[in-house]
Amino acid sequence: MLADSVGLVEPKLQHFDQALKLDCGKTLSQYDLIYETYGELNESRSNAVLICHALSGDHHAAGYHQEDDPKPGWWDSCIGPGKPIDTNVFFVVCLNNLGGCKGSTGPTTLCPETGERYGPDFPIVTVRDWVESQARLADVLGIDVWAAVVGGSLGGMQALRWSLDYPERVKHAVVIASTPKLTAQNIAFNEIARKAITSDPSFHDGRYYLNDTVPAKGLMLARMIGHITYLSDEAMGEKFGRVTKSENFNFDYGVEFEVESYLNYQGKRFSKTFDANTYLLMTRALDYFDPAQDFDGDLVKALEVSQCSYFVASFSSDWRFSPERSQVLVDAMIKANKPVSYCEIDAPHGHDAFLIPTPRYTAAFSAYMQRVAKEQGL
Amino acid sequence: MLADSVGLVEPKLQHFDQALKLDCGKTLSQYDLIYETYGELNESRSNAVLICHALSGDHHAAGYHQEDDPKPGWWDSCIGPGKPIDTNVFFVVCLNNLGGCKGSTGPTTLCPETGERYGPDFPIVTVRDWVESQARLADVLGIDVWAAVVGGSLGGMQALRWSLDYPERVKHAVVIASTPKLTAQNIAFNEIARKAITSDPSFHDGRYYLNDTVPAKGLMLARMIGHITYLSDEAMGEKFGRVTKSENFNFDYGVEFEVESYLNYQGKRFSKTFDANTYLLMTRALDYFDPAQDFDGDLVKALEVSQCSYFVASFSSDWRFSPERSQVLVDAMIKANKPVSYCEIDAPHGHDAFLIPTPRYTAAFSAYMQRVAKEQGL
Repeated sequence: MLADSVGLVEPKLQHFDQALKLDCGKTLSQYDLIYETYGELNESRSNAVLICHALSGDHHAAGYHQEDDPKPGWWDSCIGPGKPIDTNVFFVVCLNNLGGCKGSTGPTTLCPETGERYGPDFPIVTVRDWVESQARLADVLGIDVWAAVVGGSLGGMQALRWSLDYPERVKHAVVIASTPKLTAQNIAFNEIARKAITSDPSFHDGRYYLNDTVPAKGLMLARMIGHITYLSDEAMGEKFGRVTKSENFNFDYGVEFEVESYLNYQGKRFSKTFDANTYLLMTRALDYFDPAQDFDGDLVKALEVSQCSYFVASFSSDWRFSPERSQVLVDAMIKANKPVSYCEIDAPHGHDAFLIPTPRYTAAFSAYMQRVAKEQGL
Repeated sequence: MLADSVGLVEPKLQHFDQALKLDCGKTLSQYDLIYETYGELNESRSNAVLICHALSGDHHAAGYHQEDDPKPGWWDSCIGPGKPIDTNVFFVVCLNNLGGCKGSTGPTTLCPETGERYGPDFPIVTVRDWVESQARLADVLGIDVWAAVVGGSLGGMQALRWSLDYPERVKHAVVIASTPKLTAQNIAFNEIARKAITSDPSFHDGRYYLNDTVPAKGLMLARMIGHITYLSDEAMGEKFGRVTKSENFNFDYGVEFEVESYLNYQGKRFSKTFDANTYLLMTRALDYFDPAQDFDGDLVKALEVSQCSYFVASFSSDWRFSPERSQVLVDAMIKANKPVSYCEIDAPHGHDAFLIPTPRYTAAFSAYMQRVAKEQGL
């Protein structure tokens, strides 16, 4: 257990009985959200920060569940005492999104009406639905206003959506390595990942639980495809180059290069711990996200309602959501007369850079969060 | 039939009885190569140009097989009367590579020893093996020296390899949208494509012919993955953007966006016309290509033997084999004191740009080929 972590943490489960009407038109009559908190909520409840996770993330953003956990939560590099989101100052909340597979209600949950797992009958959820469900969790926790809503990638979309759907409840929105909408290429990658899953004969139209199987090969492929888009060409080159497994080529379709071995390993591991239906759902939420859609594609108009300050950060080598995508967002914020700080960070790691504590990133992120603390009188 | 084409052409089949020892250590006792020719070989046999095809290409580079063919050969934009490779001047040869599935001996061919299709027993071939087999075809055609060996992408690798393996038989090598070796990211994409094919239960360890089936879904996925890398983000954005199939979202995993529909269509069509084992083999040939390997990674040393002039061209939006990859090659050529003309062409189409007759590309390519003609006294 690293000394600068928040230490041992315990997830909590919150049940919601109030029906939730979703973007897709369907309604969830009840649901659970699993979440963790780090730090202490102050008396004036002015120090709360919401962390929104990305495609394969969950509620376990920082600290450890057990003393001997090999790794801390997924954003431990940025959340903890003295870190950019300083738990000596802020009360941090992170939940597993609705539709997830790590404890919140999702496709793997038993449907109360049928007594069987939802599977493909779990409704498609959107970023807006997530914000709505997160707002209800905030109500339960007694948080009227977030000092900041923070997220990277798909998490950044949630932070942005929060600022538009609940403008009076967000003081700062931190949008890292994200985009105001997917490009055709982004959607194409998602579609291939979904096709890999749904083409797996073990998918059984999403009812694989009934067959006591999982579409492991499809999910593995989906993850491998995703993984390429998380790393830059440069980062992969530095990590693996053309290094081979053995001195001479075997001239077959087994593993010849280290990069093949790595991708296969990552894909296989993921396919054992993640739910395929959740993967489909998360990629669709990405596809659908486009706050400008209700304003004839005018992002400036979409932003008008917002009342918060923004911090937008991008990474030079990120080709999944490139700096240009963040700049489009920032330009719209400026046109809409919203306060925004923007930072393009020179980092070689590709999209994954938002998870990696490089000095300039940490410095810029910390400085912004210190400003948040100051403005909140913390 | 377009008026500026070479018109009707007929493929020819050439049988080879002399055994071919391959890079992988195995030997092919006999094989066929299918090829086409356009234009006339002159008396001094000084006007011959070899076209090398890329991953999914074949021998049908120009003209039509039948009057009512909807499309001409794959590089008809660059080969024909008055085109960059001017068939009024040059005698052009293009063949389907060994291991292909369009008429040359490959996995779908009946193995003379067993009487069954080779399938996975067809040996892995390399770019060097292709050059060797192409040299034998040149012998049969009475071509001692090529005025030029020309190729894009994987075809460019063959042109480069020709200049190193048969330096005395190549006057000019034209290497378009290519690279001296794959990056880790390139290999990763290939590995995922292969994994998609080999994970398909219809693959049957490559012996799908015996089961009267094909791994269509795997091959479809492989092609979809490849397709993304052939187009630029920009080109996909211009072609499809976020255009949806219907006015409102269906909120399901069917086709919501035009780009999904396009990719699915392309993938499906390809899976009906291409052999999966050939796809595996072609991607492996890409992975293995690295002329510097025998020289401790020193490309300059690898180039020393060459006696030809080079034309290298890259395209600004190509992220499969980016301009930087061509520049590495050009820098090595310059260090090795080889004559080289290099042209980075500003084109939005991505890797596919080498197939698209944009004005600057056509002008540069034509100018170089006119120089070839002049030097050959044509």
